[in-house]
Amino acid sequence: MLSLTGKLSTTFLNGVCFTKQSFKIYNGYSGFYDYGPSGCAIIPCVTPEVVLKASGHVEKLTDQMVKDEKTGTFYRADQLLKDFCNEKLREDVRLSLEQAAELRRTLAMMDDLSVEELGAKIKEYGITAPDTKNPLSDPYPFNLMFQTSVGPSGLTAAYVRPETAPGIFVNFKDLYYNNGNKLPFAAAQIGQAFRNEISPRQGFSRVREFTLAEIEHFVDPKDKSHPKFSEVKNLEFLMFPREEQMSAQSAKKIRLGEAVSRGIVNNETIGYFIGRVYLFLSRLGIDQDHLRFRQHLANEMAHYAADCWDAEIECSYGWIECVGIADRSAYDLRAHTEKSGVALVAQEKFSEPREVEKLVIAPVKKELGLAFKGKALGMKATLESKGEVEFYVRKLGKNVCIKKNMLLISKEKKKEFQRVFTPSVIEPSSGIDRIIYCLCEHCFYRRPSKAGDEQLNVFRFPPLVAPIKCTVFTLVQNQQYEEVAKVISESLSVAGISHKIDITGASIGKRYARTDELGVPCAITVDSTSSVTIRERDSKDQMRVHVDDVASIVKALTDGQRTWEDVWASYPHHSFFNFYIIIFVLLIIMLVSKFFIFLFCFQDIASDFLGFLII
Amino acid sequence: MLSLTGKLSTTFLNGVCFTKQSFKIYNGYSGFYDYGPSGCAIIPCVTPEVVLKASGHVEKLTDQMVKDEKTGTFYRADQLLKDFCNEKLREDVRLSLEQAAELRRTLAMMDDLSVEELGAKIKEYGITAPDTKNPLSDPYPFNLMFQTSVGPSGLTAAYVRPETAPGIFVNFKDLYYNNGNKLPFAAAQIGQAFRNEISPRQGFSRVREFTLAEIEHFVDPKDKSHPKFSEVKNLEFLMFPREEQMSAQSAKKIRLGEAVSRGIVNNETIGYFIGRVYLFLSRLGIDQDHLRFRQHLANEMAHYAADCWDAEIECSYGWIECVGIADRSAYDLRAHTEKSGVALVAQEKFSEPREVEKLVIAPVKKELGLAFKGKALGMKATLESKGEVEFYVRKLGKNVCIKKNMLLISKEKKKEFQRVFTPSVIEPSSGIDRIIYCLCEHCFYRRPSKAGDEQLNVFRFPPLVAPIKCTVFTLVQNQQYEEVAKVISESLSVAGISHKIDITGASIGKRYARTDELGVPCAITVDSTSSVTIRERDSKDQMRVHVDDVASIVKALTDGQRTWEDVWASYPHHSFFNFYIIIFVLLIIMLVSKFFIFLFCFQDIASDFLGFLII
Repeated sequence: MLSLTGKLSTTFLNGVCFTKQSFKIYNGYSGFYDYGPSGCAIIPCVTPEVVLKASGHVEKLTDQMVKDEKTGTFYRADQLLKDFCNEKLREDVRLSLEQAAELRRTLAMMDDLSVEELGAKIKEYGITAPDTKNPLSDPYPFNLMFQTSVGPSGLTAAYVRPETAPGIFVNFKDLYYNNGNKLPFAAAQIGQAFRNEISPRQGFSRVREFTLAEIEHFVDPKDKSHPKFSEVKNLEFLMFPREEQMSAQSAKKIRLGEAVSRGIVNNETIGYFIGRVYLFLSRLGIDQDHLRFRQHLANEMAHYAADCWDAEIECSYGWIECVGIADRSAYDLRAHTEKSGVALVAQEKFSEPREVEKLVIAPVKKELGLAFKGKALGMKATLESKGEVEFYVRKLGKNVCIKKNMLLISKEKKKEFQRVFTPSVIEPSSGIDRIIYCLCEHCFYRRPSKAGDEQLNVFRFPPLVAPIKCTVFTLVQNQQYEEVAKVISESLSVAGISHKIDITGASIGKRYARTDELGVPCAITVDSTSSVTIRERDSKDQMRVHVDDVASIVKALTDGQRTWEDVWASYPHHSFFNFYIIIFVLLIIMLVSKFFIFLFCFQDIASDFLGFLII
Repeated sequence: MLSLTGKLSTTFLNGVCFTKQSFKIYNGYSGFYDYGPSGCAIIPCVTPEVVLKASGHVEKLTDQMVKDEKTGTFYRADQLLKDFCNEKLREDVRLSLEQAAELRRTLAMMDDLSVEELGAKIKEYGITAPDTKNPLSDPYPFNLMFQTSVGPSGLTAAYVRPETAPGIFVNFKDLYYNNGNKLPFAAAQIGQAFRNEISPRQGFSRVREFTLAEIEHFVDPKDKSHPKFSEVKNLEFLMFPREEQMSAQSAKKIRLGEAVSRGIVNNETIGYFIGRVYLFLSRLGIDQDHLRFRQHLANEMAHYAADCWDAEIECSYGWIECVGIADRSAYDLRAHTEKSGVALVAQEKFSEPREVEKLVIAPVKKELGLAFKGKALGMKATLESKGEVEFYVRKLGKNVCIKKNMLLISKEKKKEFQRVFTPSVIEPSSGIDRIIYCLCEHCFYRRPSKAGDEQLNVFRFPPLVAPIKCTVFTLVQNQQYEEVAKVISESLSVAGISHKIDITGASIGKRYARTDELGVPCAITVDSTSSVTIRERDSKDQMRVHVDDVASIVKALTDGQRTWEDVWASYPHHSFFNFYIIIFVLLIIMLVSKFFIFLFCFQDIASDFLGFLII
């Protein structure tokens, strides 16, 4: 133990890649540390202004805001304009064809409108505040970041991060070193992001604090192939390329490999991540018929982006963007290089030196010396007396005129040993809350209760994502069964399975309904001291398993190691349909033979039987 | 799927307990949602001012700050005073016994000093700015929260949360309902917390953004027993009760059950959490000899707290507080009840009504009516004309004098059906970053390299917590081995085991050293196409296992299902010590018999042999 001999300095922990001071390329900020890459990657939320200036967020992460001139209520200008156009198109029957076309044009070019044009449109259409009909102010930009300051002076401006990416870019140098100075590599970050929305609405699709999961995958701009692309190239799903959008067609199924080979998707790496996002969302339980990948139109993309696709999920709010997959080229690393002065670049070492022809510009020292009047080397004194030169020399801060005779420009053959370049970054970025909301919608359905008098709510979450994996019930209130339920609950805890135990006297049907409404995939009912039933939520089928096997079966099902079909085959299984027939036949036999009363004398057998009655 | 038929409203999602609007008892704030309890529990970081005013953070989460009067640099006043006293005591040999005693008194009462007393001490001792020796300003309070504002008006003050607890208290009503209106229950929250420290120092022990893990365990103040206390009552570890601290004794080993029964620890629930924290920290790898539970002195605790214990870990910074376990009584729920107007209370329904004797105060209506001059019922008009009454009636906002004859005070027997009370809360709160830092120190050691010429760094992280569980090497660069390494790497990925693959040509010794420095518990070396060796980091012992078994063995070891001892027994195992003897004997035999060359003809056998050579 080192604590008795000396401190484990942060420099040392940095050396073994566990931690480092945050924002190091901007000289660091006291009291903020990053974990990673060998530790867990946690990057601060509070981000200094200089970082977000370099990334462009301070200047560009804005929405246009208008104000009700009497009440002072704020609105997003583009939302008002959009709502106005849509409503007019939907409801105004007196609209001329020409007027309708004009409104559609406005909707289409919404993202291209400058703040002045936006204001002019609002005036032109006579749009007023939706609640009061009061006149509106001219639109003006409002930055969406929550501002704060670091330290007691209040002078170090900072923001609560609007996304997690900048925290990764500023660490590029260490991450590259940690990967043995080799490309490609990726860094991932999951965490809270914050946007001070002007008027949040649409429930979970636009909130002020949300969970972002971002990957920054750094590649050589000359080689954007992906070694695992072949694993996803045969996937086929709804894609909505730029061209189809422009020509008013709809999304169509395209094989991913074809989309890349035909150049619809810019490169294999974007393609790989599109495929992985598709697999991820499908496995979560997102309905494939209501999932599409839409390519950004030219006017939606930043000027530096090479390509950008959004995974959009259709829900009651329409198609909402849940994951963005963008090839941001070298923009971010270049911006942080420029502002921080730290070169965020990669090298490709040549296996043998390459001969290249280069334009070489050599100064003719004599002529330059004359131009500087001797200042070029020991010119300080002369400069002070004369005070004037003609081209800009950063160190002098002056202009000096270069004439033809001062330079020799020639083509020369040179040997190069490496290539230095700024990597491109491909960024899949997921809004976790939006995905969860869509998942809730896609997994939700209603079915009639047993008595048929009400509709019961069910969430058909796949076992892997259900927040609670399993409930434990006792069929009837009975101390022996309660003991068994507790034993099972403990074995589930040991196996790390989130579950609920309900040994109340509520009817078993009511308890199943509760559990279905929470999307719990397995319900265990204790109806004997040796074996129990496990009920599957959607089919309502049941099987009988030994108490000792419960935890391992539930674990295998919820980890995705085994499917229900697989498990049904190994245990006595009673499908909901067969079960009714069996019960019907049994009841008739029993009623006829008076077997009924006899059977109930044996408590354990009776409870097995009652177990089957559970629906 | 519901998306085609209607929205899944947040009200509905709230109904099934997946989500809810945040800060609902304070009328909610647009754009912030909580998940839970049936979803995952995520609570916003941005917290409205009203919540943090109620919790006392706005008024009390302050440090006293002084300023270098010339340079404007800020310091924490108490830190300067503490450093001054400690340095004086340590280094000033001319100090009289009396002076030394005075300095020790100051150190002891540090937490009790008011801002004026702190300023007076700094003046009295002539303390100046540590860097410049300039005079210091008077101390003044500085709030440690990062301030921001919500919404476009900039008028809704908010803070980035200083701890996660308030987000749980404001949700008490829903959590209580979700637990079937029964106590005890607990809510847990893990997330970032933010404190704008005046001058952060001591590396990870005082940072501006950190990870907090808090549990709020709500109990009936009349019954603070814990059903699982018996599971921890026989644990014995270093405790440092208040009395031992006051009488200058040191921490000593006490059995937890005894500490509770003797009343050293206030109640079973605090005791239970102390035990769980002890088990948690021990399993992480914290050295038990450098872990103690220190009880807060009376002057350290808030006036409302019933008891408070800190888990302190000794490291190179001294004993630092890593987990606090406090019985905060009903303070927080009462404060939020008062400010929000929403009663955060629990009910105990009696199984049968209880007869209680109560003091009943009945108004004598006639006399009161006279006092009010008829205002008591229809008094509005009279009040307006007269404008004066003598005791305080909130609705009137006036004082009215109550005389003896206006009230009948008597003891009466009444039936009560339930008891309404504010629950107590017991709060274990862990600073994850401090624990991780201490863990790094406690797990760190150095051992000589094979050649003995350098000291190699090792982190002996238990497999359960090591960030990377396993590395995969090839013994020599060889395409067949690389294929095997990739197959193993894939099987590890499928099993969810974080690992690194290193098929570079670096010497195997160097690669082991790298892996030890990252605290990786298992190193797999491919030295044949059928079986591989697994090396344990600390003993350097190796065993030989089949390629197909690797993932399951590593998983069992890192999940904690199997121990190394257990695994050693099941596979061919070569301890580091035995191995040297075997190699020595073998080498002699081979050199003598010229067996050496023969052996190497069989590549697989040869690689097995080389595998043993790895150290």
